[in-house]
Amino acid sequence: MFKLCLDSSVMQGLKLVEETISESIRSDEPALWEMARYATGSGGKRFRPLLMVLSYKSVGGTSLNELAPLAASWELIHTATLVHDDINDDSIFRRRKTSLFKRFGIVNAVVTGDYLFTKGFKLGGMYGKELVTITADACSKMAEGEILQMKNLHKACVSEKTYLEQISLKTAAPMAAICKQGAMLGGGRCDEVEGLERFGFNLGMAYQIVDDILDVVGDESVLGKPVGVDICRGVVTLPHIAALRQADPVDREKLLHILEKNFVTPDQVEKAIEIIKSTNAIEYALGKARKYKDMAKMCLSPSLDKKYRDMLLQLADSVVKRSY
Amino acid sequence: MFKLCLDSSVMQGLKLVEETISESIRSDEPALWEMARYATGSGGKRFRPLLMVLSYKSVGGTSLNELAPLAASWELIHTATLVHDDINDDSIFRRRKTSLFKRFGIVNAVVTGDYLFTKGFKLGGMYGKELVTITADACSKMAEGEILQMKNLHKACVSEKTYLEQISLKTAAPMAAICKQGAMLGGGRCDEVEGLERFGFNLGMAYQIVDDILDVVGDESVLGKPVGVDICRGVVTLPHIAALRQADPVDREKLLHILEKNFVTPDQVEKAIEIIKSTNAIEYALGKARKYKDMAKMCLSPSLDKKYRDMLLQLADSVVKRSY
Repeated sequence: MFKLCLDSSVMQGLKLVEETISESIRSDEPALWEMARYATGSGGKRFRPLLMVLSYKSVGGTSLNELAPLAASWELIHTATLVHDDINDDSIFRRRKTSLFKRFGIVNAVVTGDYLFTKGFKLGGMYGKELVTITADACSKMAEGEILQMKNLHKACVSEKTYLEQISLKTAAPMAAICKQGAMLGGGRCDEVEGLERFGFNLGMAYQIVDDILDVVGDESVLGKPVGVDICRGVVTLPHIAALRQADPVDREKLLHILEKNFVTPDQVEKAIEIIKSTNAIEYALGKARKYKDMAKMCLSPSLDKKYRDMLLQLADSVVKRSY
Repeated sequence: MFKLCLDSSVMQGLKLVEETISESIRSDEPALWEMARYATGSGGKRFRPLLMVLSYKSVGGTSLNELAPLAASWELIHTATLVHDDINDDSIFRRRKTSLFKRFGIVNAVVTGDYLFTKGFKLGGMYGKELVTITADACSKMAEGEILQMKNLHKACVSEKTYLEQISLKTAAPMAAICKQGAMLGGGRCDEVEGLERFGFNLGMAYQIVDDILDVVGDESVLGKPVGVDICRGVVTLPHIAALRQADPVDREKLLHILEKNFVTPDQVEKAIEIIKSTNAIEYALGKARKYKDMAKMCLSPSLDKKYRDMLLQLADSVVKRSY
């Protein structure tokens, strides 16, 4: 999904992260271990570990063995939130396969999520007070973002400002934390660390907006899940907000009605997508995503290692060039 | 519920823990903050913080300010597991009030539990690698215990050995960790730390067995929840196992049938309780709990501060003397 030219040292870092994940989720309880493997297994983009490895290398970090557990901790925490989110969203698919909760039931999904959280915090807890605080604060923001999103379900009147606040909590805050920690651990200068933190934040904003665009115009075979999930769940995203602003009164009423309904039919989802596509909403949202991406790129200090700085720039571009 | 003579310094420690909990769960998202307050609010016995404060003081620990966040972290983690367990068990009551999940719904309960986990790990993460590992390993065991319990739901053939393994993971392991950490932080000698860890483990075993007894013969007004919950859920506990061993063939068949059923009527719960009470099962289970309690008491090194050692001994006695 992200077509990047990575060097052998980054690949080596990602390999170490995989090994750390596999090792850390081992359990004497075979069923728990199986579910943890199912959740963390293939299919994930490993975007967060990649982001951390690049941030670390860009400030001159040299010991990937030192970094791998921290990057693995984020992938575990991220996976834990996905497992729990899928319960909350009643999602059937995740990472090209049946969601853990649909496959093993709610109870197993709650416990497996907690287990992955624990393993993530254990790995992250090896790095001392300062880094733990950054992880925990970002996780708190994710929870706040989830609650805010839930409060605004089926509210077609939700403002663009509230939407942006929502995604800043749930996606941008953790990505900012990941880049910041990678840069801190790599021994980055203060301005480099701060720049990378802002890079992560803006990239996270772009990333989530593109995710929300893909829910309207994505290719189901690439996404590994159906489109229109947000419409079904009543999560009002930027493409919806923009379409409501731009559609003619009749279509606007129809879209409003669909977004506000608790239960929608497949026909209604299709209709909503058709209405959104008939406006400039996708272009508008994509424009916003590009702005965040450009802001992200501007945050990277020129003093960073050129090779890895270039990879971060490429990564930013690839985020808004994801298949749609 | 636990009638103990505590001194002003222990009371002061518990007060600090309360303040730390209140402070740490604050959120800019009012709904999340409200739910976190609801979950952590009055009604909890604060058994775990008390256990930690006493362990800490017994080895000569002097700075309750240093200890309070660690004790608070355990109460937060414990509360998080209760919030999630209530989803899993479909529990209506918790700590004398409606369970969070019944009051605010599954989605909110999943997120609030995650939030409390995060806050717990944040506080616990301030104490460095060694203590974080102890917390995380105990949390992993709790998850393993949950899964094991789930695998054995409605299996009336479950052995006493499996039951003991289950409760050692879900209750004894965290209590062992709490005592161990309290003793480590208080500067206890190696043998004192080890002794307190074993004290916590055995106390946890006694605690859970008594909990399971109270589910059969407890006073609902004291418990703050109905009896027979385990029977309804199909959690086969020591009193059930002992009753199946002791009951006459007709009663045995009836009890077996009720425990193995996925849905039981209130009459059937009452019948099961009647059968269990007609045997020596409660006496048997209580005998086991007393043995663990006695073992716990024997684990406490004579070198501990007499005053706090006595309180720990009292606490152990009070665990098996809880209302029934």
